[in-house]
Amino acid sequence: MRNVAIVGAGITKFGVREASWKDLVQEAGKAAFKDVPNLDKKEVDSLIVGAAQPERWAYQTHVAPLVAELLGLRPTRVVARTEVACASGQAAIRYAWLAIATGLSDIAFVIGVEKMTSKNMAISQTSMINVANREFDGPSGMTAPPFFAMVAQRHMHDYGTTREQMAVVREKNSTYGSYNPYAQFTKRFSVDAVINSKVVAPPLCLFDCCGMTDGAAAVVLAAEEIAKKLTDTPVWIIGGTQCVFAADTVNQMGNLSEWPALRRAAKELYNMLGIGPRDIDFAELHDCFTISEIMEYEELGFCEKGEGGKFVEEGRSYIGGDVAVNPSGGLLSFGHPLGATGVRQAWEVFNQFRGSVPKERYVGSNARIAITHNLSGLASLHHIMAYSIEKRKEIKLGG
Amino acid sequence: MRNVAIVGAGITKFGVREASWKDLVQEAGKAAFKDVPNLDKKEVDSLIVGAAQPERWAYQTHVAPLVAELLGLRPTRVVARTEVACASGQAAIRYAWLAIATGLSDIAFVIGVEKMTSKNMAISQTSMINVANREFDGPSGMTAPPFFAMVAQRHMHDYGTTREQMAVVREKNSTYGSYNPYAQFTKRFSVDAVINSKVVAPPLCLFDCCGMTDGAAAVVLAAEEIAKKLTDTPVWIIGGTQCVFAADTVNQMGNLSEWPALRRAAKELYNMLGIGPRDIDFAELHDCFTISEIMEYEELGFCEKGEGGKFVEEGRSYIGGDVAVNPSGGLLSFGHPLGATGVRQAWEVFNQFRGSVPKERYVGSNARIAITHNLSGLASLHHIMAYSIEKRKEIKLGG
Repeated sequence: MRNVAIVGAGITKFGVREASWKDLVQEAGKAAFKDVPNLDKKEVDSLIVGAAQPERWAYQTHVAPLVAELLGLRPTRVVARTEVACASGQAAIRYAWLAIATGLSDIAFVIGVEKMTSKNMAISQTSMINVANREFDGPSGMTAPPFFAMVAQRHMHDYGTTREQMAVVREKNSTYGSYNPYAQFTKRFSVDAVINSKVVAPPLCLFDCCGMTDGAAAVVLAAEEIAKKLTDTPVWIIGGTQCVFAADTVNQMGNLSEWPALRRAAKELYNMLGIGPRDIDFAELHDCFTISEIMEYEELGFCEKGEGGKFVEEGRSYIGGDVAVNPSGGLLSFGHPLGATGVRQAWEVFNQFRGSVPKERYVGSNARIAITHNLSGLASLHHIMAYSIEKRKEIKLGG
Repeated sequence: MRNVAIVGAGITKFGVREASWKDLVQEAGKAAFKDVPNLDKKEVDSLIVGAAQPERWAYQTHVAPLVAELLGLRPTRVVARTEVACASGQAAIRYAWLAIATGLSDIAFVIGVEKMTSKNMAISQTSMINVANREFDGPSGMTAPPFFAMVAQRHMHDYGTTREQMAVVREKNSTYGSYNPYAQFTKRFSVDAVINSKVVAPPLCLFDCCGMTDGAAAVVLAAEEIAKKLTDTPVWIIGGTQCVFAADTVNQMGNLSEWPALRRAAKELYNMLGIGPRDIDFAELHDCFTISEIMEYEELGFCEKGEGGKFVEEGRSYIGGDVAVNPSGGLLSFGHPLGATGVRQAWEVFNQFRGSVPKERYVGSNARIAITHNLSGLASLHHIMAYSIEKRKEIKLGG
């Protein structure tokens, strides 16, 4: 199989946008094509779109051919949309990666998009129950905020994690996000501001939660021999795993303060690459809520189980610490347009590795390996992709 | 990259089922696992679900982890849902094929499902406009029947195709479907019966149209070295192409009696495999309407442009003719549960090659190469997969 690289990326401003999902596709698409000036659109032979619920938020399915039309593409190898709720964008990158790795495709355009806001947010929000096991957990209103609130409660109970430690996650991510003009929220939030914001689902307050947001992000992927012609700074995809373990039904889950599926996905990834968690230089993690990022430190092995709160409090997930987590500002700054997030994280990784981010949030030129992580649904399914500035010499994904 | 084979398959009875989409998943899933008795579920490392609109027909997204739960799977490599409307199932097979070909995955479970019927079919049918460009073509009611009626009208005008020739397609497919107990419609329809059925959208009558149906189908895919342990009759995936060409908006399309995207996808496939249309022994084509199959003969190169009506009338697409088309009975017999169809076609290919179909619809033991084809939306996007009883010696997908 062949090495595959990101050779270009583009993004929209994330936020409450007076724009349709089609407008967002065009905005991110144009930005991505502008980023790869030597790319002839005719050479794009695959198109994969990550989108979670256009059926409900835009009364539209079969979005891939519409995107082809909007962007002037006529791909002949892989044309599809991927959906795994909150990780729909990462799934699109994975599909494109495999298509190029096999030789089926040479250049793939990947775009993630979601238009979540509307004039009637009650209707927009109602559809969020569809990402859980609706028949079982819908009647009890088990959308994301109450679920992650229960995770936080259990983590506090089991490990003594504090309210303040969770708030530090937002303080950190909002600091980085304040240097990212594409983020929805560019304001910095102190620990006090987070703790004193309105309660959403105890212990989570408003500023512990990411937003329901509109946005799109795109990356161009290419095979090794082509990548070199399109950019001087290719960023290589070196691996990826996923794991579903706990059921997507709350009453079937075990202890909510453990995410064994993430632990397993991480272990598989480290085995695949012959590395350990200390080899990760920076990570874009799925901080849909502050507690999520704390859980992820632990399950990814960045710290011991139960030590996640202390890990961020001691600055070990800041730039300059053990591992720089969410130097983009994360979902907490960008909001979480479901289909866009996974691709937006890849956009960040690409820009970090090529050094095209403000120095205040730059992880530095020594960084070699990065991961992006998404969880989807009620944290039942976990998704990790690994990237490097150095391509793998021996490309072997099995084992 | 590695050779990939179908090693097992299962299916539900298609029809108006008193069953939820989850019930259908379990029914097809169990049948598929039963078909591969030596498979340990723990060895299934990928799961891909093809489904078009569970968001609208079941108020459910993020279906892949629910399917994992229903089937008792804990995959760690690829877990996703694919959506390209009417071809969602084929896209799932393609994703799994690539995952195994690269070495990322060893054994993938692929399932396509759709629950389309409900107590209120008006509501179920309304969602069908979402597969077109709803904002533009929704207001004029441009769902599938009127669109394909316009295709038929134009084909009759341009090439003199007759009403009777279209009806022969149903006569042929219903004959084969009458020997397929899993089909929704197992009754045989004569040309007269088709022509005298109720008018839906002139010239198309009720029996020119496939049904809105409930159903699921599953296939198990495995890498070459594993495939041999799981079955004596592996069926190899040897190639696949897709093409989007015309826009998914009717006012942007050219002459409706031409589907250049299908012509291009076929050309790419033939080039990839170093074969021509005469090398195809049998084909499961997307006969959502009788006229569709006639168009497909032409664009796939089975006959000259405009000769499709005559092609079926002369028996050349029957078993024993130039190429056996839809020996399963096709969509016209099975109905078209959007996500299930593409996988159901692969189930047919697998069963034909291993000779486990009734003799009345068996293509024979000399068959070497088969294709499955789907169109999606208003025929804007075409999808082809190629299968063979012989694995490819030189596995090269580019070019």
